[in-house]
Amino acid sequence: MIVIMEHDATSEQVDKVVKFIEKQNLKVQINNGETLKVIAVIGDKCNFNPNLLASLDGVREVQKIQEPYKLVSRISHPKDTIVKFPNGVKIGGLEKPVLIVGPCTVEQDIEGLLKVAYAAKEMGCHFLRGGAFKPRTSPYDFQGLEEKGLQYLAQAREKTGLLVVTEVMDTMDIALISKYADLLQVGARNMQNFKLLKALGRQKKPVLLKRGPAATIKEFLLAAEYILSSGNPNVILCERGVKTYDTQFSRNILDVAAVSIIRKYSHLPIIVDPSHATGKKYLIEPMSKASLVAGAHGVMIEVHHNPDIAMCDGAQSLSVEQFKNTAKVLNKLIGRIDYDNKNL
Amino acid sequence: MIVIMEHDATSEQVDKVVKFIEKQNLKVQINNGETLKVIAVIGDKCNFNPNLLASLDGVREVQKIQEPYKLVSRISHPKDTIVKFPNGVKIGGLEKPVLIVGPCTVEQDIEGLLKVAYAAKEMGCHFLRGGAFKPRTSPYDFQGLEEKGLQYLAQAREKTGLLVVTEVMDTMDIALISKYADLLQVGARNMQNFKLLKALGRQKKPVLLKRGPAATIKEFLLAAEYILSSGNPNVILCERGVKTYDTQFSRNILDVAAVSIIRKYSHLPIIVDPSHATGKKYLIEPMSKASLVAGAHGVMIEVHHNPDIAMCDGAQSLSVEQFKNTAKVLNKLIGRIDYDNKNL
Amino acid sequence: MIVIMEHDATSEQVDKVVKFIEKQNLKVQINNGETLKVIAVIGDKCNFNPNLLASLDGVREVQKIQEPYKLVSRISHPKDTIVKFPNGVKIGGLEKPVLIVGPCTVEQDIEGLLKVAYAAKEMGCHFLRGGAFKPRTSPYDFQGLEEKGLQYLAQAREKTGLLVVTEVMDTMDIALISKYADLLQVGARNMQNFKLLKALGRQKKPVLLKRGPAATIKEFLLAAEYILSSGNPNVILCERGVKTYDTQFSRNILDVAAVSIIRKYSHLPIIVDPSHATGKKYLIEPMSKASLVAGAHGVMIEVHHNPDIAMCDGAQSLSVEQFKNTAKVLNKLIGRIDYDNKNL
Amino acid sequence: MIVIMEHDATSEQVDKVVKFIEKQNLKVQINNGETLKVIAVIGDKCNFNPNLLASLDGVREVQKIQEPYKLVSRISHPKDTIVKFPNGVKIGGLEKPVLIVGPCTVEQDIEGLLKVAYAAKEMGCHFLRGGAFKPRTSPYDFQGLEEKGLQYLAQAREKTGLLVVTEVMDTMDIALISKYADLLQVGARNMQNFKLLKALGRQKKPVLLKRGPAATIKEFLLAAEYILSSGNPNVILCERGVKTYDTQFSRNILDVAAVSIIRKYSHLPIIVDPSHATGKKYLIEPMSKASLVAGAHGVMIEVHHNPDIAMCDGAQSLSVEQFKNTAKVLNKLIGRIDYDNKNL
Repeated sequence: MIVIMEHDATSEQVDKVVKFIEKQNLKVQINNGETLKVIAVIGDKCNFNPNLLASLDGVREVQKIQEPYKLVSRISHPKDTIVKFPNGVKIGGLEKPVLIVGPCTVEQDIEGLLKVAYAAKEMGCHFLRGGAFKPRTSPYDFQGLEEKGLQYLAQAREKTGLLVVTEVMDTMDIALISKYADLLQVGARNMQNFKLLKALGRQKKPVLLKRGPAATIKEFLLAAEYILSSGNPNVILCERGVKTYDTQFSRNILDVAAVSIIRKYSHLPIIVDPSHATGKKYLIEPMSKASLVAGAHGVMIEVHHNPDIAMCDGAQSLSVEQFKNTAKVLNKLIGRIDYDNKNL
Repeated sequence: MIVIMEHDATSEQVDKVVKFIEKQNLKVQINNGETLKVIAVIGDKCNFNPNLLASLDGVREVQKIQEPYKLVSRISHPKDTIVKFPNGVKIGGLEKPVLIVGPCTVEQDIEGLLKVAYAAKEMGCHFLRGGAFKPRTSPYDFQGLEEKGLQYLAQAREKTGLLVVTEVMDTMDIALISKYADLLQVGARNMQNFKLLKALGRQKKPVLLKRGPAATIKEFLLAAEYILSSGNPNVILCERGVKTYDTQFSRNILDVAAVSIIRKYSHLPIIVDPSHATGKKYLIEPMSKASLVAGAHGVMIEVHHNPDIAMCDGAQSLSVEQFKNTAKVLNKLIGRIDYDNKNL
Repeated sequence: MIVIMEHDATSEQVDKVVKFIEKQNLKVQINNGETLKVIAVIGDKCNFNPNLLASLDGVREVQKIQEPYKLVSRISHPKDTIVKFPNGVKIGGLEKPVLIVGPCTVEQDIEGLLKVAYAAKEMGCHFLRGGAFKPRTSPYDFQGLEEKGLQYLAQAREKTGLLVVTEVMDTMDIALISKYADLLQVGARNMQNFKLLKALGRQKKPVLLKRGPAATIKEFLLAAEYILSSGNPNVILCERGVKTYDTQFSRNILDVAAVSIIRKYSHLPIIVDPSHATGKKYLIEPMSKASLVAGAHGVMIEVHHNPDIAMCDGAQSLSVEQFKNTAKVLNKLIGRIDYDNKNL
Repeated sequence: MIVIMEHDATSEQVDKVVKFIEKQNLKVQINNGETLKVIAVIGDKCNFNPNLLASLDGVREVQKIQEPYKLVSRISHPKDTIVKFPNGVKIGGLEKPVLIVGPCTVEQDIEGLLKVAYAAKEMGCHFLRGGAFKPRTSPYDFQGLEEKGLQYLAQAREKTGLLVVTEVMDTMDIALISKYADLLQVGARNMQNFKLLKALGRQKKPVLLKRGPAATIKEFLLAAEYILSSGNPNVILCERGVKTYDTQFSRNILDVAAVSIIRKYSHLPIIVDPSHATGKKYLIEPMSKASLVAGAHGVMIEVHHNPDIAMCDGAQSLSVEQFKNTAKVLNKLIGRIDYDNKNL
């Protein structure tokens, strides 16, 4: 931690800062710059609040140097985390990237869901996604089938062997959803719902944590830290685009570099959701390819048996036929990445 | 192109718009909606400037469809909502703006809280704020005193008569917090926690809804719509700054214009939190003044009995002495606004 | 300057960094943190490039501590700059805020321009604005009357005594525009046209520098530094809104706090342009009031003699009648600010 | 609501859209524009989801009017523009992607520049980049060698046969720089320097136009439209990252999807600059790969003979050795793309 004093800070003010720090059993080192005095704080600062310093008179700014996340950081845990599922499927490290496939929302027509699930199975995918509890910006949009949707997903799993991914929106629903799902998703808008994160940290199922629409990578990693520090090490991160001033051609800007960055600074697996990121069918395939060559451990693709009548996000869903073509391209690319990307 | 007329546009104004369009060799089709008259412009619009229409009298907007929020909109509910508290205090409409005052977090030292509460009372404020359940970006930061904090707030109310404002982070905590608080706050990071919004809509206490750090005004109003559409009409909105690429001098950019915009398009009260928006003590007073002249129904100011040792956000908290000076300035301004702002 | 080493930096790497710094005749101070080593660089760093350090092996990050702008900073120049015009009008410091009024673009109809100018004069304003060279996002939009527009502005000055403000878009036009204008405006999109800034620094007319649509306050101040460091101390800054993801109700988000921030950290005058910031007539008056109570040295308001037929930005222009009403309100507020804001 | 059909939509597709709308009890009006068929939807659309329409075959977009750019649009010019250089090198269409390589800034030491140029030549690259006139945020940073830098670049071209790319900052420098350069670069901060764009449109050398740090894709295409509409069809676009609230790990967020978007909506070539976008050496290779699989016509990579002492952006420059390794990987990928990406 580094304390930068105002240019006209008095020596009394500097003294007060120094004494304050020393009272916390921390050491101090003063650097007298040309125009600004800088005080370095040395020692274990875990339980020390920088605001205590920032509000002392004469202090201009306090800068934290140590990374605020510990458990998710590669510094404390250099080896890749690989999340393992009961059927042997793995996500992370140098494992073959996975495809997570399914409709945005589970709808009344279970035949449609099964059609997508069989196609996913046919193309070698391992995961079926679908929302039973839906976060919608407007209260007048369809909010999901709830438990019935979960049952449909479980039926699809029984028939295909695919693992089920679905969203949890509230601490009260965790127990119910855990009965049906293999991987519990936290939606982008809930990335900083800290009560939910803690509760998911106290249960056993792996968690798929989506990046908030305007979250920095640091905030994203700290949200994951909530889950790990509550006891659950099996967290998979998901990049899904960042909110900007340009929404005309792509709903969000997909931050492909976040994949490479997170692989460098964290040991957690990171996948990408090009469907929600862009909101455009034609961008799903190129953005999946871009994410995979950047090191993504998987991609999550919206597929609907009949996008023209989808209750939610039809415009961004691939049809089953379109999906099969894209899966062919991606499977081919994945086959090559193992070879090319060895040193990633 | 679609021209939406103000809901109280006169037929002369509509005629003027129609003639204007027809003079450009464009055809017109008028749709008399339930609440809004909409004029569709048909033909080749290449050389036609929408601003020509946007500035005609009676024109509300060009090129947009109906607002997706109904209950929070001034169209469906032209009269200001005024939220009334049991002790007669009111927020909204042309009522005198209120000051909501207190520490970011309720701490172990109840004497400190009481010191702030007495000062607030002395300066004529009506609300005491303080967090008992705290949303923190890092799991290693102090998370609040929980029920003990609520009890402290209730004690302060007993001694001063101030109304208590505190944050609810999870549906499971609503019952507990409602026992103690007069106004239930939804934090910025939970603005789209839709389960929480619905649950708050099903109970009776008024709700203070903070704008998400990257929420558009439309998303903000739709979040309020969740509460209203679940049965609770007593929602107070709170602008608290918008996340941008510039964080060096101010944590967020305070969107002062949002106050004027929301007063035009919604009937709900809107207050401002300059402390969290800027994170800087010296900006609290000028930004409070700016918000009040823009039409805010109140401001929420962080005050700590000893900011140097605050466990959270000390750098942005006023001391009791600083608060009294600022309250004097704001009370004087508020005294004048009643007169100046009559037509706002 | 502070150099933060990677957590696994070797002592050889640290040594190399230290030697490198010492070779520049700078001193070094090493702080051994728990997880990260930090090296402070002490001395005059004006001519020293941080990238030299950032690319050495083992370096994680280089942080500049010293403010990069010198001439615009209040540290080097504590007294307010007050820009004085030949007719005695002043902008800055504790001078009475000014109103700058006029159409976005000077059009063929000089009578319209004169109508606005007379109204401005009548309301006690000192400046007439109007674009003769127009930066337009599309090449198919009207690009301005060029010299003819300048002549019209000069005629309006002759008749009313108002000072003329107009935009310079290119170094080649400076000589021509200087013959007609009293205050040379740099548009938001040219804020980092460094050749233009330097050329404006080498001439004598005062410069009105608008903040770029996505410029940080630091970048804004550094752009002003270009003009001052080239020899011209008479720069007036202009806040005009910041580009964000919300454009539905206001074109940009007006950063009112930037006014208070710039008054604290720089001695240069700062005015506000609520017309371009919001793009909405009804927001001009409340945002002007908000800016003035936050400490703005002036506001720039678009007024058109007939907004319905304006060639540019008609939707955001006040009519002459609307302007007079707003000017009345603002003049009254300005009358009071002198008294209230003494200590700002 | 307005439905814009693809320019090659069949009449069957139009019929399907019309029937779909009429089934919702809405009326339809078809406008056969010069280039696009537009279907206006008339009636109460409250309960009607635009996604239902957006996903029908042949539908380009819902709710928007005609594109404001004409010459850069694929609608008016369906065939890819391929920019050809005197030595036969081509950029665009299905041509093999190019590598543009060199230091950020041309420095005093010409031997260093030549070392980079020979390495570029050795790896099969066709372009050498280097700044002689440098736009720098601070006036105290090195501003470039100016004409001497241009001469150095020309010498490197003579010795290696590489084509020279360098930046033009001002209309007054175009004639001088054209004498030396093969491709004239417009920097990100000048993307909306409209006078410069027009002047570059009136000369013959191809132009490399970088996207502004906060420019939307529409603004980017409109900036290119300025050059084309002034007479120069040879424009190459360059994506270089977008300014956001997250700058900790990557200077900007690289908008990889912009590549695919621009290839769909414009015929102009589009390349990517991962060095400036990310500012991090380790991200250059993965982001180059991601850009190429997304369809980029080239990547621009900063290489310095000795990054540790570079006067500008050393932290993001590859050394010659690092560059050779990356070029090997990219050349291998490019070899495969021809085969894989045929239908892009």
